[in-house]
This record gives sequence, C-alpha cells and structure tokens, in this order.
Amino acid sequence: MFTFSCPVSFSISCSSSNGNIQNHGDYRVNINVNGSSCTRRPIKHHTLLNEVGVKEGSTSLSAIQFLENGHISEENIRQRIPRQKQLVDPYRQGLITERGVGYRQTVVVRSYEVGPDKTATLESLLNLFQETALNHVWMSGLLSNGFGATHGMMRNNLIWVVSRMHVQVDHYPIWGEVIEIDTWVGASGKNGMRRDWVIRSQATGSTYARATSTWVMMNEQTRRLSKMPDEVRDEISPWFIQKQAINEAVPDKIVKLDDKAKHVNSDLKPKRSDLDMNQHVNNVKYVRWMLETIPDKFLECHQLSSILLEYRRECGSSDVVQSLCQPDEDESFANGVQQNLLTNKVLVGGNGRLGSLDINTLTYGGYTHLLQTTGETQNEEIVRGRTRWNRKICTDL
Amino acid sequence: MFTFSCPVSFSISCSSSNGNIQNHGDYRVNINVNGSSCTRRPIKHHTLLNEVGVKEGSTSLSAIQFLENGHISEENIRQRIPRQKQLVDPYRQGLITERGVGYRQTVVVRSYEVGPDKTATLESLLNLFQETALNHVWMSGLLSNGFGATHGMMRNNLIWVVSRMHVQVDHYPIWGEVIEIDTWVGASGKNGMRRDWVIRSQATGSTYARATSTWVMMNEQTRRLSKMPDEVRDEISPWFIQKQAINEAVPDKIVKLDDKAKHVNSDLKPKRSDLDMNQHVNNVKYVRWMLETIPDKFLECHQLSSILLEYRRECGSSDVVQSLCQPDEDESFANGVQQNLLTNKVLVGGNGRLGSLDINTLTYGGYTHLLQTTGETQNEEIVRGRTRWNRKICTDL
Repeated sequence: MFTFSCPVSFSISCSSSNGNIQNHGDYRVNINVNGSSCTRRPIKHHTLLNEVGVKEGSTSLSAIQFLENGHISEENIRQRIPRQKQLVDPYRQGLITERGVGYRQTVVVRSYEVGPDKTATLESLLNLFQETALNHVWMSGLLSNGFGATHGMMRNNLIWVVSRMHVQVDHYPIWGEVIEIDTWVGASGKNGMRRDWVIRSQATGSTYARATSTWVMMNEQTRRLSKMPDEVRDEISPWFIQKQAINEAVPDKIVKLDDKAKHVNSDLKPKRSDLDMNQHVNNVKYVRWMLETIPDKFLECHQLSSILLEYRRECGSSDVVQSLCQPDEDESFANGVQQNLLTNKVLVGGNGRLGSLDINTLTYGGYTHLLQTTGETQNEEIVRGRTRWNRKICTDL
Repeated sequence: MFTFSCPVSFSISCSSSNGNIQNHGDYRVNINVNGSSCTRRPIKHHTLLNEVGVKEGSTSLSAIQFLENGHISEENIRQRIPRQKQLVDPYRQGLITERGVGYRQTVVVRSYEVGPDKTATLESLLNLFQETALNHVWMSGLLSNGFGATHGMMRNNLIWVVSRMHVQVDHYPIWGEVIEIDTWVGASGKNGMRRDWVIRSQATGSTYARATSTWVMMNEQTRRLSKMPDEVRDEISPWFIQKQAINEAVPDKIVKLDDKAKHVNSDLKPKRSDLDMNQHVNNVKYVRWMLETIPDKFLECHQLSSILLEYRRECGSSDVVQSLCQPDEDESFANGVQQNLLTNKVLVGGNGRLGSLDINTLTYGGYTHLLQTTGETQNEEIVRGRTRWNRKICTDL
C-alpha cells in the first residue's frame, strides 16, 4: 500500500517548490518540512484562531493526530482532525456550548440546498444534521478517521448506525439565510445514544426545526449490531446531557405497510453516489426515495412538517429497493386539522414560503411509508416512516 | 398576495415575545421594532463584522434592501442581501480579492459532499462553483432577489444560463479538508460573460482544480436567449478581468452522438428536487445523469480528471431525458497515456485517493456524452459532454 508520510519537527508547512506534493518514484516520500521548499504557504491554523480570540495553547500542534512512528500522514495534514477538545473552530464556524458538552454551528443556507421555492429542502436539513453531529465529535477530540467513530470504536471495529430519527420543521430557512444549529447527545438505554438538534434563525432567534435521533453501534466487518464496549462508554458518556429537543412522552409507532399500499415505486437501485463513507446507502437517500413516491400533485401543494423514521436494516449497493406509501384516511386528515386548531400551532410562515400563504388552506395531511429490499424469496424492511404535511398555495410554482 | 413587512426605523431586531414571528389574522402585520417585544436577540451583523476587523460603515443598514414604501420584507430581513459592495462576509467566509473585483471563499469539505472514498464528488465541486459565483455577486451589491441576477437583469426579466463549462481536477479534496475557492469574471464576446474558478488547498496552497464557464442571458418569460442590455453591461463590466483559469487556445469541439452510442439510459424524468430557483433542472443534475450512464465497472476503477460541457437548451420539469455515452476507441486511450507522459503531468495523488495509487495503472480513459429530450417527433439536445479519466486501484472499495 502506498503511504504518504511526513516526518514532523516543529511546524507543519508542507508544499513543494511548485506548490504540488510530489512523487519521487519510489511511492514513499518524506515531505521536507522547515526547509526552503516548504515555506510557500504555511498552515494558517494559529493565525485564524488568534483572529477569533482563542488561546494558541488550546490548539497546539499536539492536538493533531500523529502516526505511531512519529510521522504525520498526508491525510492528517489535509484533515487535521484534533486529538484534544477544541472550544471553537473558525473554519466550521462552530463552538462548544452547554457548559462544555454541546456544539453550535453557524451556517449559511447555500443556493444548491434550496428547492425552486428558495426554501431549504428536508434533505438539506438532514445533511446539516449529519454534518453538525460529525463536527461535534470532531471538536470533542474523540474522532478517529471513521465516519463519526471514536478511537475506542475504531479499536473495536465499530461504526455508528441510526435506528430512529424524528424531525419537526416549523419554518424552512431560505436561500442565503444565516441559521444556528445546536446539537448535543444523551444516553439511550444501555447501548445507545440519543442525538438532538435545534435549528434557529440567527437574526431573530426563532426556532425553525427540532430533531431527535437514536444511534447504535454496528461491527464494520460482520455488519451486526453490537453492545457498547466500556471503553467507548467511558469516552462518550461525559458528553451526555438530559435535555431533549422534542418531548416524546409516548413515541409514535409506525404500522407496517403491505403490498396493498396505494403508491409503490419499485426497482430502485442505489447509485455509487448514494453510498457514504460507511459503504452503505446514506439514510438521507432513504428519505428521498420515500418522498419521491408521494404523488407530485400532493407535493406541489404541501410542505412537510414532520417526519418519523424507524430504521430496520442497512441497504447496500447491490440491494434492489421498493418504496411504498399510504395516505391517511380522510378522517385522519380531518382530525389533523382539529388537532392543529386545538394546539394553536403557529402555522403562518411555517412553510418558509414567503408571501404565498392563505390560512384557510392550512390543513394537515399524513403518509405512512415503507422502504424494503425485494428479494427472490422474501422482502426485508429497511425503514418505516411517517410524514405529516401542511398545505400551501401552489399556483405560482 | 400575503406579504410580511416591517417598518424599519433604526435597528432591525424583530422577534415576538415567544420567539416566533406572529400572524395577527389579517395576513399583514407590522413587526414591532425597537419595542420591548423585539429585544430578545438582536441581529449580530455588526458584532461579527467587528470581530474580523471590518469598518462598521461598510456594512451599515443602508446596505440592506428596502421596499419602495420604506418597509423591509421578512425575506429581506432573513436574507439580508447587501445593496452596496462588501469587502468581507464572515458568515460565508468570503472576501473580495483581485484588487477589488475577485472573490475568495474558504470552505470545509462536508461529510455529505464526499463519496465512499472520502473525496469530494464532482457534483459537490460543481455545487461549490455555483455557490461561490452567487456569493461573488452577493458581495458586489448587484444581486437582486433572483438566482444571481443583477438589478438591471431583474428590470429586464433576465436570468443567467450557462452555455459552456470546462473543469479540470488534479486533486480531489477530502472530507474535513479546508479549501479556498477563487472566482472572477471576464467578457465573453459581446453578450456573454466568462466565469473562472480555482480551488486550492488552504494548508499547502496546491491547486486542486480549475474551471472556466460561459454564461448568457435568457428572458425568464419567453425562455429565449437575449442580448446583454447596456444597463446590465454597465453593472457588470467594471468587474471583468482578463485572467483565465484554463488556457484554452483551441477549445475542444464535442461530436454529437447518435443512437448507435454504446451506453444509453432512457426515460430519465426530472424530480421536483432537481429543479433550481430558475425553475429548470439545475446543470449539476445533468452531470449526474451523464456519469450514471458510464458502466459501474469503469467508475469503480477511474476518477474523473476533466469534463467539458456544451449546453444547448434548458430542461424543464416535464421533459423526458435520454443519456448516451460512448467510450473512446482503444487507440485514443493509448494516445491519452502518451500525451500524459509527454506533458509530464503529476498524477500521483491526483485523484485525492490516499494510499491506494499505483503509477503503473495510471492511464487516461475518455467518454463522449449527450443528454437529449425524447419527443414524439424529434429529440432535442440538452447538453454535449466530454469526460477524461485517470485510472485508480479499486480493490478496496
């Protein structure tokens, strides 16, 4: 295996004279540090941290991962995953909150994260949840080189898999809007972890969305769920807090759909671009498959207000997937409206679609979802879902 | 139409007592500013700019868009598009360069922007090109509320459409890596604009990717191309510079494929999530359709080194699309290797895949592409493409 290593002395400022990291033909080179060829552009880590008023000692070089032989890999130079807890990261615009255990990141909603109505898509929000969760672990100093796995998890060949996710969206942020995403973790039973998020407007402080999720560990090789080893519990439990983004006194159960479901998309095949760093289909992709099964006519006039997901098994690159969904009965829709009026939920502006709402048209709609692999002998559940929707005017789309 | 407006006096810090913007039943409310109910969380714009050492005058409230009646819309409060040139934007981590006309943004490669090999996907790079281009216009003070359109373009009902894009990638950034993206614009004939980009490693200054593109204007209603009105030229030409990211002395021409092409994906239908703020399929989606037509076996062992795109017509939500591609003849592959050796291009590390390259396997491959709408009487070209590829070892994927 080709490795790229760099003997580290005092500072890390590695680039060759022409600005490219060079290959010298033997597939293993040492990058010259502190020499004249390495001075073109020093790493600005310290400079930028100073700009935001962070003490240099808190982000010293000892915070960067070294290989056992004292070398630092090219990957480490490029990623610079900290090995010690960081209080602020100016690049990620993140900082530690909640008396040292929570994480907050300021994010601008990007042009490609919004739909034709200029509001962030659910997929974008889920991506940002994943991103801030990983950056939380990044800041903790616990991150190994895996997809959010700690050092203890890596030693035990464990990866994180999500078992449950519940998202409530009151307002969708719009293109260019600055939002703050808070995230934190807590215990979930003996072997799981709860992770919550809150999205707020940076300008007004209004809460736009809340989410809670449950995570368990899976052996990367056997792909079987695992108990949480003590050494992993010792790493992560000091970060646990009780606070909950969504109060779920009696968690909803999702019924299992069968082949009588009203809408079915069959023969869905994961693309290479759907796989994530854990080599399976990313859970955000599942949501896209679910929502694409809902008729366009409904999607045009409704905006998702909540989604509940129960993950049952992972989906690999060779699986063939079927997406089923079933709208609620009319009665449920009516009950939805009633419940909405009773709880006096503020709905205007709640879809993030500005200047196009008519309160008379605001009603709930609901769908039950199932994604399953289709095998020769039997189908296997991947994820069950429940979505709830607010109505919006759709004439100008 | 429902509008949400706020009479502006001295400061903009609008939130109701419970943190939510409220509806008062008549579908038009004034948000109380400077009152006790508006003091929960003031906009931190000035504070953050001070933190990075920007003079407050350069980002005063007069820089924010007002409606003609002196009101500021909720959308404007949330987006805060500047009407005057800004030199720095701490939220976007952007700053004006090139003696006042270029733009540079520092970006962290996010977890959902990389593939299973932890390197950024081409799609992610294209998305970041779009994002930085829009933020460049944002900083210029010329941005209206359209998708990159200037005030003059809005008055003339014009939108930007891309007619050509050429991207060269030497190194793919990896998950968590900090990169700098430079972008600037220049003239392209009488009615067009060229936009270029360079992506560099923030740590080493190495150039990872370069791109150039050509943009023309389209009437938003008629969907026909338009000349550049004088008032638009007056807005944007002061920003034009000569510098070019890619030297294209003799631009490549792309042959048109016919139905004898080796690989064909038919019946591709745009989803709602594929549409952008201009209400048509975003050009990044085109690239996904193109690349998905290449056999998986090739994709597994190759990494894209360049892509050239010639856009012919836009694709709407009701179009049905066919994606064709044709690999180069073996002879061309061989010529590619020869050319590669002659130009002494540094390829090791060039795919961003760390620790898995074998120089003996590095060869070029090439594909010609066509996306077309399939109609009852005739097909219409959407985009022609050419891709070139470096080989990589693929056993551990």
